[in-house]
Amino acid sequence: MSAPQRAASPFARVAVVGCGLMGGSVALAAQQMAGVEEVVVTDVDPETLAEAARLGVGHRQEPDLASAVAGAQLVVLATPVTVTVRVHASLQGLLAPDTVVTDVSSTKARVLEEIEVGDATDPQGPHFIGGHPMAGSERSGVAAADATLFQGATWVLTPTARSEASAFEALSSFLRALGARVLAVDPALHDRLVAIASHLPQVLASTLMDEAAEAAERTGEAVLAVAAGGFRDATRVAGSDPGLWVGILRENRTAVLEAIDGFLARLQTVRSAVAEQDWVQLEAVLDRARAARERLPSKQRAGRLYDLVIPVADRPAVLAAVTTALGEAGVNIEDLAMRHASDLERGALLVAVDGEAAARRARRLLAERGLPSHVEPR
Amino acid sequence: MSAPQRAASPFARVAVVGCGLMGGSVALAAQQMAGVEEVVVTDVDPETLAEAARLGVGHRQEPDLASAVAGAQLVVLATPVTVTVRVHASLQGLLAPDTVVTDVSSTKARVLEEIEVGDATDPQGPHFIGGHPMAGSERSGVAAADATLFQGATWVLTPTARSEASAFEALSSFLRALGARVLAVDPALHDRLVAIASHLPQVLASTLMDEAAEAAERTGEAVLAVAAGGFRDATRVAGSDPGLWVGILRENRTAVLEAIDGFLARLQTVRSAVAEQDWVQLEAVLDRARAARERLPSKQRAGRLYDLVIPVADRPAVLAAVTTALGEAGVNIEDLAMRHASDLERGALLVAVDGEAAARRARRLLAERGLPSHVEPR
Repeated sequence: MSAPQRAASPFARVAVVGCGLMGGSVALAAQQMAGVEEVVVTDVDPETLAEAARLGVGHRQEPDLASAVAGAQLVVLATPVTVTVRVHASLQGLLAPDTVVTDVSSTKARVLEEIEVGDATDPQGPHFIGGHPMAGSERSGVAAADATLFQGATWVLTPTARSEASAFEALSSFLRALGARVLAVDPALHDRLVAIASHLPQVLASTLMDEAAEAAERTGEAVLAVAAGGFRDATRVAGSDPGLWVGILRENRTAVLEAIDGFLARLQTVRSAVAEQDWVQLEAVLDRARAARERLPSKQRAGRLYDLVIPVADRPAVLAAVTTALGEAGVNIEDLAMRHASDLERGALLVAVDGEAAARRARRLLAERGLPSHVEPR
Repeated sequence: MSAPQRAASPFARVAVVGCGLMGGSVALAAQQMAGVEEVVVTDVDPETLAEAARLGVGHRQEPDLASAVAGAQLVVLATPVTVTVRVHASLQGLLAPDTVVTDVSSTKARVLEEIEVGDATDPQGPHFIGGHPMAGSERSGVAAADATLFQGATWVLTPTARSEASAFEALSSFLRALGARVLAVDPALHDRLVAIASHLPQVLASTLMDEAAEAAERTGEAVLAVAAGGFRDATRVAGSDPGLWVGILRENRTAVLEAIDGFLARLQTVRSAVAEQDWVQLEAVLDRARAARERLPSKQRAGRLYDLVIPVADRPAVLAAVTTALGEAGVNIEDLAMRHASDLERGALLVAVDGEAAARRARRLLAERGLPSHVEPR
């Protein structure tokens, strides 16, 4: 196939724990998906569940966690990052062994560490794979839920050496059916990346808005009247939920501090260029930034799909090595499948990427990590 | 009248000097305006003029400056800020005494100072009133010109003690016919305000984009793949023309440095809150920022118009005092007219503002400056 194909869900029964913007959007999208029989949503707040019922979010709204997840093949934890580990622990004993569990929390390293330590006591238990959809809105709550929220968005998964390939494959397939593009990266790298691409922009937007508001008190409201499109864009996410964001910045404190420090140093350089009237250096910064802005990957996928065929024994560690190598290079996984060993050929992992250039780059990256592969056009 | 009314242009012949995004958009909008007979555009670049002709920007495209402005009642200088003063000087002797001249340059104090010094040699010459439309786009050039660019946007005018009330009135009326809302502020205050509301956001967007691009080189392209809507919003203006922005930042260097320093200090405070895990302080910043973001004035005008009737002798200095007092408080001028003295009543300046609350506030502000007025609903 050369066009992207919307696959059916590999999970017939889906439970969503936490029914805000993210959970509600996953539920709405899953309800429209071929292969899905029932989507159950649960939330600690009865009013949220009542609103979900009014809005038709979930086929069923279930206040009790155990009842909500009973029989689910996929459990999506869409709770605030500060409680995800606790909610995951409370699932203990409630799920069938093959259940796939994922989350949407916006930091990953600590969550993964604590959850995998918990899971280690039950190696036959459900399979957890961390996730983080790079989509959102300055709006929050179930009323803002939108079935199309993830269309074209990158959904990061953070498989580790303990992740099962079959669970990763099924979850990726579900996420693609939501319209998302799957990018797999190491949990710690994920946290450093989102510190720069998401948490730092939030800090800057709030700081700028706060500075402008104080200037308005000092110099007159005119500062807000002259705020045009550029200012509105720059401060849009300052409208986000403060409580949620304190939780996120707190969870990712170390990486956020690093990102703020990197930004402070660079802004000092720009300041010096202005102060010393070094217009050549200032223009160099603006030039580099413009070139980089124009290179920002678009949401659309244009190229033809190519499969990287990677001979593997069915060991989870290889999956994490492969997906992480591609993720670090920003290569999205457009599709993923296991080709099982037969008498005629060895088992292989098939990873589809977008376009011949990406395929060549991916092949080189894997080779550098001792993972030979060949490329097949779809 | 209680609804805004699109007035006819007080100028039948309009010349636009410099045919980029701003000049082209003014020309296109003026061409659609009742009362306008001819819009002539000129530019130093013959290719730009050829493109303007292809796109139908201006009724006539005229390479020669003297021919372009001959007979114009309004001349709009839409050149880069670095050449505006020079272009204005080259108009010397080309214009009729009553011609109104304005510019769109994004800094005002130095431009005004140099232009008014030039004009002082010719007190009977054309009337210059500085302007700055708070509208734009990360796109540039005549191909991006758009007749609706100024709809609902604030257009700052910077009348001084030397400005003629009649010129200000006619120019304001023309700008309202473009769809803009007029806000009058002191030139030096204008420069401090745009440093915060426009130039600082530009610096932050470029710095953030540059930082992320370097992180992509260091940690893998994934940082760009995880860049979601918040990052795209925050870096949108980083796509703007670097040469143009070096000119703007250079012109407004002192105010820009002040704005960067204010931001740096505030970002340091936020950084400390994260480093010291002072989540209460961090949440307070995010809370204040969210509240301020929600208060950002919307582009729409909703209220009923009220006239402030300010008895004045027809002295220009009163105009600047009145409009600047309102501008500092962020009160837009929805309409403006002179009521001339008759045997029965004194002359008055009528300034229409949006809504009763704004009218009360404006009346108080004027009273504090020794300018009594009364309020009349329209």
